[in-house]
Amino acid sequence: MIIRKKEHWFKMLFIWHGSVLPRLLPRLSLLFLLSLAVVYLHGTIFSFKVPLNTTPLTLFGFVLALFLGFRNNASYERFWEGRKLWGALLNITRSLTRQALTLLNPKADEGTVLEFVHLLTAYTYALKHQLRGTDPQDDLKSRLGKQDLEQLAQAQYKYIIITKFLAAWVERAKAANQIDSIQQARFDENIDKLEDVAGGCERIMSTPIPYSYSVLLHRTIYIYCFLLPFGLVDTLGWFTPFIVVFIAYTFVAFEAIADEIEEPFGVETNDLALSSMCEMIEQTNLELAGMPAGQSRKNHSKKQID
Amino acid sequence: MIIRKKEHWFKMLFIWHGSVLPRLLPRLSLLFLLSLAVVYLHGTIFSFKVPLNTTPLTLFGFVLALFLGFRNNASYERFWEGRKLWGALLNITRSLTRQALTLLNPKADEGTVLEFVHLLTAYTYALKHQLRGTDPQDDLKSRLGKQDLEQLAQAQYKYIIITKFLAAWVERAKAANQIDSIQQARFDENIDKLEDVAGGCERIMSTPIPYSYSVLLHRTIYIYCFLLPFGLVDTLGWFTPFIVVFIAYTFVAFEAIADEIEEPFGVETNDLALSSMCEMIEQTNLELAGMPAGQSRKNHSKKQID
Amino acid sequence: MIIRKKEHWFKMLFIWHGSVLPRLLPRLSLLFLLSLAVVYLHGTIFSFKVPLNTTPLTLFGFVLALFLGFRNNASYERFWEGRKLWGALLNITRSLTRQALTLLNPKADEGTVLEFVHLLTAYTYALKHQLRGTDPQDDLKSRLGKQDLEQLAQAQYKYIIITKFLAAWVERAKAANQIDSIQQARFDENIDKLEDVAGGCERIMSTPIPYSYSVLLHRTIYIYCFLLPFGLVDTLGWFTPFIVVFIAYTFVAFEAIADEIEEPFGVETNDLALSSMCEMIEQTNLELAGMPAGQSRKNHSKKQID
Amino acid sequence: MIIRKKEHWFKMLFIWHGSVLPRLLPRLSLLFLLSLAVVYLHGTIFSFKVPLNTTPLTLFGFVLALFLGFRNNASYERFWEGRKLWGALLNITRSLTRQALTLLNPKADEGTVLEFVHLLTAYTYALKHQLRGTDPQDDLKSRLGKQDLEQLAQAQYKYIIITKFLAAWVERAKAANQIDSIQQARFDENIDKLEDVAGGCERIMSTPIPYSYSVLLHRTIYIYCFLLPFGLVDTLGWFTPFIVVFIAYTFVAFEAIADEIEEPFGVETNDLALSSMCEMIEQTNLELAGMPAGQSRKNHSKKQID
Amino acid sequence: MIIRKKEHWFKMLFIWHGSVLPRLLPRLSLLFLLSLAVVYLHGTIFSFKVPLNTTPLTLFGFVLALFLGFRNNASYERFWEGRKLWGALLNITRSLTRQALTLLNPKADEGTVLEFVHLLTAYTYALKHQLRGTDPQDDLKSRLGKQDLEQLAQAQYKYIIITKFLAAWVERAKAANQIDSIQQARFDENIDKLEDVAGGCERIMSTPIPYSYSVLLHRTIYIYCFLLPFGLVDTLGWFTPFIVVFIAYTFVAFEAIADEIEEPFGVETNDLALSSMCEMIEQTNLELAGMPAGQSRKNHSKKQID
Repeated sequence: MIIRKKEHWFKMLFIWHGSVLPRLLPRLSLLFLLSLAVVYLHGTIFSFKVPLNTTPLTLFGFVLALFLGFRNNASYERFWEGRKLWGALLNITRSLTRQALTLLNPKADEGTVLEFVHLLTAYTYALKHQLRGTDPQDDLKSRLGKQDLEQLAQAQYKYIIITKFLAAWVERAKAANQIDSIQQARFDENIDKLEDVAGGCERIMSTPIPYSYSVLLHRTIYIYCFLLPFGLVDTLGWFTPFIVVFIAYTFVAFEAIADEIEEPFGVETNDLALSSMCEMIEQTNLELAGMPAGQSRKNHSKKQID
Repeated sequence: MIIRKKEHWFKMLFIWHGSVLPRLLPRLSLLFLLSLAVVYLHGTIFSFKVPLNTTPLTLFGFVLALFLGFRNNASYERFWEGRKLWGALLNITRSLTRQALTLLNPKADEGTVLEFVHLLTAYTYALKHQLRGTDPQDDLKSRLGKQDLEQLAQAQYKYIIITKFLAAWVERAKAANQIDSIQQARFDENIDKLEDVAGGCERIMSTPIPYSYSVLLHRTIYIYCFLLPFGLVDTLGWFTPFIVVFIAYTFVAFEAIADEIEEPFGVETNDLALSSMCEMIEQTNLELAGMPAGQSRKNHSKKQID
Repeated sequence: MIIRKKEHWFKMLFIWHGSVLPRLLPRLSLLFLLSLAVVYLHGTIFSFKVPLNTTPLTLFGFVLALFLGFRNNASYERFWEGRKLWGALLNITRSLTRQALTLLNPKADEGTVLEFVHLLTAYTYALKHQLRGTDPQDDLKSRLGKQDLEQLAQAQYKYIIITKFLAAWVERAKAANQIDSIQQARFDENIDKLEDVAGGCERIMSTPIPYSYSVLLHRTIYIYCFLLPFGLVDTLGWFTPFIVVFIAYTFVAFEAIADEIEEPFGVETNDLALSSMCEMIEQTNLELAGMPAGQSRKNHSKKQID
Repeated sequence: MIIRKKEHWFKMLFIWHGSVLPRLLPRLSLLFLLSLAVVYLHGTIFSFKVPLNTTPLTLFGFVLALFLGFRNNASYERFWEGRKLWGALLNITRSLTRQALTLLNPKADEGTVLEFVHLLTAYTYALKHQLRGTDPQDDLKSRLGKQDLEQLAQAQYKYIIITKFLAAWVERAKAANQIDSIQQARFDENIDKLEDVAGGCERIMSTPIPYSYSVLLHRTIYIYCFLLPFGLVDTLGWFTPFIVVFIAYTFVAFEAIADEIEEPFGVETNDLALSSMCEMIEQTNLELAGMPAGQSRKNHSKKQID
Repeated sequence: MIIRKKEHWFKMLFIWHGSVLPRLLPRLSLLFLLSLAVVYLHGTIFSFKVPLNTTPLTLFGFVLALFLGFRNNASYERFWEGRKLWGALLNITRSLTRQALTLLNPKADEGTVLEFVHLLTAYTYALKHQLRGTDPQDDLKSRLGKQDLEQLAQAQYKYIIITKFLAAWVERAKAANQIDSIQQARFDENIDKLEDVAGGCERIMSTPIPYSYSVLLHRTIYIYCFLLPFGLVDTLGWFTPFIVVFIAYTFVAFEAIADEIEEPFGVETNDLALSSMCEMIEQTNLELAGMPAGQSRKNHSKKQID
């Protein structure tokens, strides 16, 4: 994710980093060359004049804009739902830590609370690694006991097993008569919400926008861009390539961004900063539990976080 | 559902599998031939020139795009709500399994927990088969006891009866003093949510988008496509058929996809992969309960799952 | 509500039943005749040529499409919210029946459970009749005791009184020590949800989309259709009436459907099938309670259910 | 709020009451006169011909329609959220009354229940008067005891103090051992929801749509309408004023309705009928409590209720 | 936030304060000068005539309007969600205060309740200062005890630590047998909701709309405005600059407002009035607790509150 201060309106016109322009340059250059050729040949192909004007392009514009709008909204909703789920994760871990601190009587000792907080952060890291397809071993090792690690070793859904560890922690407090059934229920409700967060993220990851949509929209946009110079050459003349590339840039870039944020858990420019959120969740929970927070990656001077 | 890796933008233009193009080819060919005839006859019918130009087509474009957009959004919401319901199902079963593992005191033995997990997966399979109108017998036989199967034999809403079995399992734990009322209530709340999932799926299945909408939109699109060549022939000449088919492809394909995902529980290309989800739910719950997961259909190398 | 199998794309163009076309024929015929007159008089009124072309119609198209889209979305949301409320009703009754079967200890005898199920279905039928303004007496008589019926006789909000009967049933179980406060609370929460369903349906029924919207949109559409032939006659000539009627059909039909589903609890073609849902709710609850289901109106061969 | 039966499509074109037309007549007349002047002067100002045609108006139409659509959707959502909050209020009061009737053991006597119902209706009326800025004294006097009234006299948020009275009623039942903590919690949850309703209504009332939006949209619409005759006079001639007023009517009326329902708690034509809802809430709760309902304002023959 | 009475429609056209016009004047002046130059040179650059007409601008209009609409909706949703979170904060604090007053037995003395209310308002102020990046010390000092202040001194998420103080207050009441586990659970649920509010606000603050969107839209709008005079000069002549500035004003202002409300917790003209809300929350909770409300900043005669 890119974190930048607001720029002056004029400077913002020339920003390179954070724009999708660099990635699209080859395609747009190709289109520019094509348009040049069309201008040079006055819109003919093998001496046949292509009798296209802008009218059908206008007809087409309606449905293309509509289509692009749909795709974009669906992608953004996925992005924002992913963010909401990780926001909920933050809230739930804080609630659980607070409960571990204030519901038990006699109070749990510091080590026991820390164990609980480590389970919560292990859950968080395990979820992140699952969503990104990376190896969670390093992040888990420092937070979990040896026995727990062994149980997790072969598990496919490690974070779900960790919710069982959390419930077992609560169960032990119940067995030790530090909480009664009602207080156990309060913990249990919040652990249920952890399952909802995990399931929600898995849902977004495993179910893309129906594939036929992407194919259809992709084709429509590129054929449209290919037809543009033929439709514009008669009225715009030598100015055609500039306008074609300008229009194409907007359409293609719009699709490219939508495509990127459709899977919000990746590591592309506009994806969610899961690593930073993991650290932040750990920090705030340690702080709440009254423990020295782990070293924070605070150098947010850099413009992109992942 | 189609699961594909992202393709290069250029290759994606020529994808065949997963596009709705194959299914639409006959209609589009018909339209191509019609357009050829219109070009040949210079837009006359029985020597009467049809004095159509693009102006009314533009007027019409507004409302058609709007209409198509509405239909498409409504369909996609149904698709995504269906997916959310099955996502919730995953979360609820995990929560219930975790509760069966950690709320009882003394703990339930392994066999009893397995029985509970089997009830959950039986529920899942029964729901899938109901939504697809297929026979659940095979999937239920391996998961339920003989007595339960008999009770289900004649039932129309088998999964609802299974929620009763789940509640009865909890009731027995209560009778054996392994849980108290409060812990029973925690189970009960999650079983309530299972009813919500079932009812939500039934709602989507039994109530399509009002039929009059589909008829009106269908007619409007096809009449529009039929009028297109007459409106374009004067300006586009021999290029008319190509443009007509291109525009028609987008409109008709858009409607076809919307029509497909409107009923997300079927087995068409873009429908939800209920079978895979059933397996996944079984796997994760068995894993959570600490049991060897059933054999998984892991050959996801294939491009489509159902 | 119309229940039809998917038709072939070609047949669907000529469907009569389920389309709003029949109801709109008189208006469209009137417009056709007007257009014919305009063509005959070459767009003059009392020898004054009306100097209209399509430009202002295009200007106008934007806002009309937008307006129509708003009205339609608002109507569809009401329709779908109505459906969701009835779907929730199904889920809640199932949950309550399950609770009546599994939470009591010692168990309630069959007659007592049946009484509870009958209260639930009486609630359902009472709500349906209130929403449609019909007489619930027949449906209530067979499901409620004499004393209850007397209490209901004068009541304006019969279903609300029935929620009191449900709560009284639970109260009796509590007094008989079959449940404790916690289990009573589980029942009570679900009865709260029944109030929400009733209130939600009343809200949709009693608060239409603001009247000024309907008047403004209605006027705008009809004046627009009236102006169409004057704007098109110069370019389309004898083809004008066909195009005018085609465009008008789409606009007017769109408004007509939106108008119909705005009040989803009526008995028009596209309204919700409340009667079928009432029967279905009764069936599934009786089945769940292990009782012979009432005779079902299963002849769904007919194309419309109410 | 206007309550009308559906009119015949033809009659509906000439409805006066309930349309915003009367209020807009002066502005539209002004515009008509301006257009006449433009026609008379052939689009010149001080002999300078204003070289405007419809092209820029079309360019502008996109963004204007979009803008108007945004404003309108935001306003309608506020209206509908306001209605939902009052619908929730109905549901919550019914739930609380039912709980007062069935959760206490030994039962509360009739007077005590009536006192509770009066607190609920006093809450409702106090909220209405706050939202409309009117004096609640008359409506409170008949429903509350002298001591309660004194406490309320100086309070700014009277309904919030009343939720305390409700909780105190429950507290007394607890002190008298008629309910235990669990049943008290059920009451308490519903009283929490009353706070949510009050806060939701206050939110809508105190936070309008950002002011800059209203200013920008207002300006854009009126300048657009002012430019219209200059853009249309060359092609439409003497017909210009009619078309200009017709287009302007739609834009201006659309904005006027959106402006009206943005604050749904007022007493304008399209605002919510809070007074009727207050009466209805009182009636249904008294009926539920088995008491003679207060006199109802049943003469709904009149076309507008407030 | 700007609080103004509704103005007469005519006066509203000339409002200066609250419009974004002042801030945009330099850019619009630049564009006006550019347009003048284009008119003077008849659309040539270095004697090359730029052969642009309005057709590509129309093509482009679709996607630009769509894009702007998306950005605007996303921004407004963020603004409104921020407002909803603060509305929820009001509701939750009122609920907690009511619970502190009515759930304890024997009742808490006045000082203890006041301590609880002060914790709630300290939470509110701490959140406001975090969201605005300002120093909370002054507002916390008057509301918290010395010991609490010390604990907060180094904390990064002060409001989260305060939720722990709230839970500790409840814990003490439990230890003193003034409440049982069930009543503690009621408090605990509401404190959970406080975590949700905090997390929701942090989410909006820390995750802007993906940066690539802002860059792309910004560029598109400004290039579009730059091309406008070249496209319009041939048909509009000397009137070009006026129309160009008018169209540009709408586009640019629309983007500027969207940009402003995207981060609703700032202190710009259209941002949320967090300070006023903090005061209001304190007032209503003190009033509810029966204490003299703090001095209120009631001079709402001024037009802007922050």
